[in-house]
Amino acid sequence: MLRDRYLEAMGEAAATVSVVTTDGPAGRAGVTVSAMCSVSADPPTILVCVHHLSPACQAIRANGVFCVNVLGDEQSAISDTFAGRSPTPGGDKFDGTEWRALATGAPALVDPLVALDCRLVEHLRQGSHYIFIGEVADIALGNGAPLVYAKRAYRGLGSPFKAMAAAA
Amino acid sequence: MLRDRYLEAMGEAAATVSVVTTDGPAGRAGVTVSAMCSVSADPPTILVCVHHLSPACQAIRANGVFCVNVLGDEQSAISDTFAGRSPTPGGDKFDGTEWRALATGAPALVDPLVALDCRLVEHLRQGSHYIFIGEVADIALGNGAPLVYAKRAYRGLGSPFKAMAAAA
Repeated sequence: MLRDRYLEAMGEAAATVSVVTTDGPAGRAGVTVSAMCSVSADPPTILVCVHHLSPACQAIRANGVFCVNVLGDEQSAISDTFAGRSPTPGGDKFDGTEWRALATGAPALVDPLVALDCRLVEHLRQGSHYIFIGEVADIALGNGAPLVYAKRAYRGLGSPFKAMAAAA
Repeated sequence: MLRDRYLEAMGEAAATVSVVTTDGPAGRAGVTVSAMCSVSADPPTILVCVHHLSPACQAIRANGVFCVNVLGDEQSAISDTFAGRSPTPGGDKFDGTEWRALATGAPALVDPLVALDCRLVEHLRQGSHYIFIGEVADIALGNGAPLVYAKRAYRGLGSPFKAMAAAA
């Protein structure tokens, strides 16, 4: 079946893991995503895809802002929390992790690999997901290597190919 | 400057490398992209972002079809060719690599990690790029590991974290 082969195919690709957050009149929310990509450098623009049933989806639309927190390879526990794979005793996924506000007020990790704070400029529904396109208003740069998800496992970053590293 | 920090930030994230191709009345074209992500499994949908000045951009719009060829970790030469980083003596980037047609007729690698053959269902311009949203019409699944681009180098896939691999 095409759907099953699609899920298998996407499982082969590698993606950086991010927690997308929002805050504002509709309240605070956050969700783990691997569907994030750069769109344009002029102006700096990114997009994320969020399932229409995720509470974060409604909140991003209502608040008009979101922050993409790209996780480092030691932050898989944060990924699990915001993916709903870990219990959150107090009921608040944001507990136990340090956050701050950048330009828009959406929660940014104090120690992300990268945080891209965005104003929502466009959204569209496609199948089960919303595509949120955001113009980057503020950026925080951390240190380290990204948390990668591929073949149904968290992974670190592989070593650079020698020839390509020299050419890059 | 925000633009420079944006480019630095996106360089930290890891992405799978793909060659997006098209064929039809507007002719054959292809370009290397790292901005590709899954959108929805119901129906199977993906998106890619292509610079508005790329010849592939006009061709995809006119042909209404595209194929995302996710590259394996031994296919960085194909990435270089379609990114314009390698000379193409005959002037045709498709020369020297084996292609076939899946459902739409857009060129699919005979030996990709994954090929996702799509019908264009939506496109929108955002800054310097077009976002092309495609419903998956056909899929070819290969073997191996993805070619990853991060921190300005081609890389293989990192090892799974032991604890997470067991849980995955």
